[in-house]
Amino acid sequence: MGSKYPKSLRIFLPLWVLMLEIAFILVFFFFASYETISKKSEFLKTYHAFQDINVMAVLGLGFLKASLRRYTWSSVAFNLFNLALGVQWAIILDGFLFSSSGKITVNIQRIILGAMSAMSVLISSGATLGKVNLIQLIVMTLLEVTAFLGTKNVSWVELQGNEHQSMMQIHLFGACFGVTTAWCLPGRRLNAAKEKERGTTTSSLFTTLGTLFLWVFWPTFNSALLEYPSEKETAVYNTYYALTVSAVVAMSFSAATHSHGKISMTHVHRATLAAGVAVGVATNLIHSPWIAMVLGLLAGMISIAGAKYLLVMVQQVIGIRLDAHGRSCLKPQCECICSVPFRAGFQILYSAGSLCLFMAMGLVGGMLTGLILSLNLWKAPHEGKYFDDQVFWEVSPSMNLT
Amino acid sequence: MGSKYPKSLRIFLPLWVLMLEIAFILVFFFFASYETISKKSEFLKTYHAFQDINVMAVLGLGFLKASLRRYTWSSVAFNLFNLALGVQWAIILDGFLFSSSGKITVNIQRIILGAMSAMSVLISSGATLGKVNLIQLIVMTLLEVTAFLGTKNVSWVELQGNEHQSMMQIHLFGACFGVTTAWCLPGRRLNAAKEKERGTTTSSLFTTLGTLFLWVFWPTFNSALLEYPSEKETAVYNTYYALTVSAVVAMSFSAATHSHGKISMTHVHRATLAAGVAVGVATNLIHSPWIAMVLGLLAGMISIAGAKYLLVMVQQVIGIRLDAHGRSCLKPQCECICSVPFRAGFQILYSAGSLCLFMAMGLVGGMLTGLILSLNLWKAPHEGKYFDDQVFWEVSPSMNLT
Amino acid sequence: MGSKYPKSLRIFLPLWVLMLEIAFILVFFFFASYETISKKSEFLKTYHAFQDINVMAVLGLGFLKASLRRYTWSSVAFNLFNLALGVQWAIILDGFLFSSSGKITVNIQRIILGAMSAMSVLISSGATLGKVNLIQLIVMTLLEVTAFLGTKNVSWVELQGNEHQSMMQIHLFGACFGVTTAWCLPGRRLNAAKEKERGTTTSSLFTTLGTLFLWVFWPTFNSALLEYPSEKETAVYNTYYALTVSAVVAMSFSAATHSHGKISMTHVHRATLAAGVAVGVATNLIHSPWIAMVLGLLAGMISIAGAKYLLVMVQQVIGIRLDAHGRSCLKPQCECICSVPFRAGFQILYSAGSLCLFMAMGLVGGMLTGLILSLNLWKAPHEGKYFDDQVFWEVSPSMNLT
Repeated sequence: MGSKYPKSLRIFLPLWVLMLEIAFILVFFFFASYETISKKSEFLKTYHAFQDINVMAVLGLGFLKASLRRYTWSSVAFNLFNLALGVQWAIILDGFLFSSSGKITVNIQRIILGAMSAMSVLISSGATLGKVNLIQLIVMTLLEVTAFLGTKNVSWVELQGNEHQSMMQIHLFGACFGVTTAWCLPGRRLNAAKEKERGTTTSSLFTTLGTLFLWVFWPTFNSALLEYPSEKETAVYNTYYALTVSAVVAMSFSAATHSHGKISMTHVHRATLAAGVAVGVATNLIHSPWIAMVLGLLAGMISIAGAKYLLVMVQQVIGIRLDAHGRSCLKPQCECICSVPFRAGFQILYSAGSLCLFMAMGLVGGMLTGLILSLNLWKAPHEGKYFDDQVFWEVSPSMNLT
Repeated sequence: MGSKYPKSLRIFLPLWVLMLEIAFILVFFFFASYETISKKSEFLKTYHAFQDINVMAVLGLGFLKASLRRYTWSSVAFNLFNLALGVQWAIILDGFLFSSSGKITVNIQRIILGAMSAMSVLISSGATLGKVNLIQLIVMTLLEVTAFLGTKNVSWVELQGNEHQSMMQIHLFGACFGVTTAWCLPGRRLNAAKEKERGTTTSSLFTTLGTLFLWVFWPTFNSALLEYPSEKETAVYNTYYALTVSAVVAMSFSAATHSHGKISMTHVHRATLAAGVAVGVATNLIHSPWIAMVLGLLAGMISIAGAKYLLVMVQQVIGIRLDAHGRSCLKPQCECICSVPFRAGFQILYSAGSLCLFMAMGLVGGMLTGLILSLNLWKAPHEGKYFDDQVFWEVSPSMNLT
Repeated sequence: MGSKYPKSLRIFLPLWVLMLEIAFILVFFFFASYETISKKSEFLKTYHAFQDINVMAVLGLGFLKASLRRYTWSSVAFNLFNLALGVQWAIILDGFLFSSSGKITVNIQRIILGAMSAMSVLISSGATLGKVNLIQLIVMTLLEVTAFLGTKNVSWVELQGNEHQSMMQIHLFGACFGVTTAWCLPGRRLNAAKEKERGTTTSSLFTTLGTLFLWVFWPTFNSALLEYPSEKETAVYNTYYALTVSAVVAMSFSAATHSHGKISMTHVHRATLAAGVAVGVATNLIHSPWIAMVLGLLAGMISIAGAKYLLVMVQQVIGIRLDAHGRSCLKPQCECICSVPFRAGFQILYSAGSLCLFMAMGLVGGMLTGLILSLNLWKAPHEGKYFDDQVFWEVSPSMNLT
């Protein structure tokens, strides 16, 4: 019943991680220091925003991906692994790329940026989930964070981007990166065993738990990087309004697309969050609730109606067989692609270039990463073992969710 | 296995929701604007209270209702639907009723009030859960929020109520409203299939998760609308003390009422929260911990011991067959009714009238809503399909919780 | 199927709890009052820290212990019971022991201290879980909180300890206390029925949920009692860095210790948190991220590699049969014992005595408590009924997690 893990991996995995961590520690030893500002109130305020984002990344995105019957443990645990690794690498890279002194100064703002950059990996991994092992995840985390921060750097230099605008492109970047990476992995036409990809009521409840965490704390995510208090406030209001409309639309429109008028839980997960993404970039520039509401309405509708046809199209074109679970995991991807048309409207006004840049870099970076991950070197799990906790976890035979 | 959803509903639901949302957007277009105060610290403080209340509404009340074996998805998802719809309507109505300018000014305080008003629907829906479809939920949300804000308006004009006092009546209002609405729905004498109403260990754990979210954040709920810092502080202490005593009492007294001395999880869910309701209205006026503790003790005891006999009595009198799950869902109702006697003691001092007003309006409003919802017009689910996720959700045949 | 609860317990439990609560209320009536400072901003800041700690205690530690197939309800619910009782007793005792006036002044700082002191019981109960009934839990809570606060008192008088340093010893104290208490209980050599101790995927996901709550909010725990803003900030950074490294190490090293290279979920639960404990005492004194990272690396490695051999050793020496679930529940214990070596390095510098004191008092206190709990007086559950929700809870026959 259990499946053997290649012996080489068993030896290499801890060795590589140890070497990587020692390298990180050495970099921090030579180049990093804490910047402790004594303004207590400033720190505490940002600390709360940081915790909200942490809850979104660890609990929200972690449980969001837990909808597979036989892949719940990996979804939640590897999500934490990716985040913890990604945030360390992002802070190092960010320090070298974006600081004038060549020193890494660690403060709460830098940690928030690191956590957000690492979230690009968490979004992408929705597409590669169940197909890669831990070593591949390490490679992917390092490459994607590098690609994202590199792209951010270019967008700053070439396009006068700012922190908020570039970070809000993370959904799009992560989506494109994840899709192309998954496309390059072997077995993309594989029709995963039906038994494995079916969700259960329980795992779906955990996914709903993740969705609700994201729903509640999204206003913090969309406002954390804005500088002026009044901008933050507007961003919170707009995000909240877009999310409420989108939640209402999600359930009713999902019923409309089903032949028996039934609601799909996957639609609900996807559409309730689409608005948060859609309103992201321009959230501080919208000065009336009705615009945010229209965005929420469109995001909810497009992510349900559009996704249905778009997915079919995408599958035809790029040949990915997105099975039931893939669609659920690809949630952020779909909503991003869907939101392009009306986000474009806003983008044109100030940063259409940035959008294209992040999208292109996401596609190219994902492609390269996917090719690297396809090398025989990494002892990837055999295609027959995709989407199975038992490849990675010590489970007792009768423990599966039923 | 699956049951067909009436075709008309499939077409009407998204159409109605779309029209409703467009109407809301038009109202916001013509009448609403953001009020952005630049005092950053004030906004951030209130924003945290808002998030706590959001966690209570979305995660707490959502999962609290998830204890049914075959109705967990609907409980959690429809809860979000009700909240998202209710908060939009509440802000519109609140703006027209309680602002002198006739304009809707959206700020964080108004959104908190909107979310709290919408929580009346979330409380009531505990009683109607599993018996109504989404269209009926829309009608119920609109009617109940209107009734609650109307009652609040009357209590302000006639009884010099304030924001905190009227909002703390929401449990009582929601409970009365829910009970009478459910009473008017067909099938109240129905003995739901035993298989459906039985909880499972897993769904009960999700309910416990919801209960614990409410337990942790209740002090914020009871203090959010108070004006003066010292009042807020006292409210937090009193609520916390009442909740701790009530949690201790809950488990030990539950064991006493069972013939084999076993604890009922339903009792625990109900009694741990009873104290938060009981201490609500007067929470800023209690100046010693021991009074809060006595209230917590009584709330815990009455909600267990009282509920047992009161429920039997209520069932005899009004003819509702409150089955196992109904009792669990009616938690807030029971505790409210139970808490009337000793809350009355405090109420007499300043607002006995308000209590009666909210109760009466809740009963009358619920009755009318129930009658409206009983119309054939709404294509309500057939009684045999009560409490079944499959009526609304796309589920694979073998997905049920076991 | 159900097992009868001794009749005497059914009568005595509510009676005792009632008497205890009335005694508490009388003490608060005569000796306690609220101290309401009107500095709103100070209160609100501490209130957020209080809520984070509450989330950790109620949701984090509660669900962390939910990994047993047949003991999930008791784990979560009795955890709340212990906390709610412990915090009341801790505030009383703390007021008498540490205030000059002999009066109990209740403010938010005191409530945080009370909640943290009560957390010692929550840590210990990981070891006694499933073997004691509610009356024994009451006795244990009262005795352990007394022992902890007594030890704290001694450490202040004799060793010039401060609030932060003594509170960070709580993991060690709780671990030692729990292990010796469990050792004195009958049936320690008992080989619990395999069926009961086996976890399920679902219960393990709830445990993961608890772990992640602890992971997210641990920085608040380690910084809440520090006085100066800059100390708080440093504590947050160090804890976060240690936790990220430890999370990365957890998964890779767990794979290394398994013969087939599989990851153990129990390891992940334990090792991701080990760093938070390891970095606790000295967290405000570390001024570079790399030291925190080294601590996190060591904590993660030792808690996995060490635990494996240490546990075998401990089992040989003290004769406790730590079965699969015991190991999971003993998580905090193991990591504490494991962290002694390198914590010692820091301790030597300022408070090696304190470490020994809390450890010794934990062992002695636990021993005495264990002996008291072994008395026939308490009608402890029969050994054959260990780890079974059905002893305490009203469950329908077919409700068990499968």
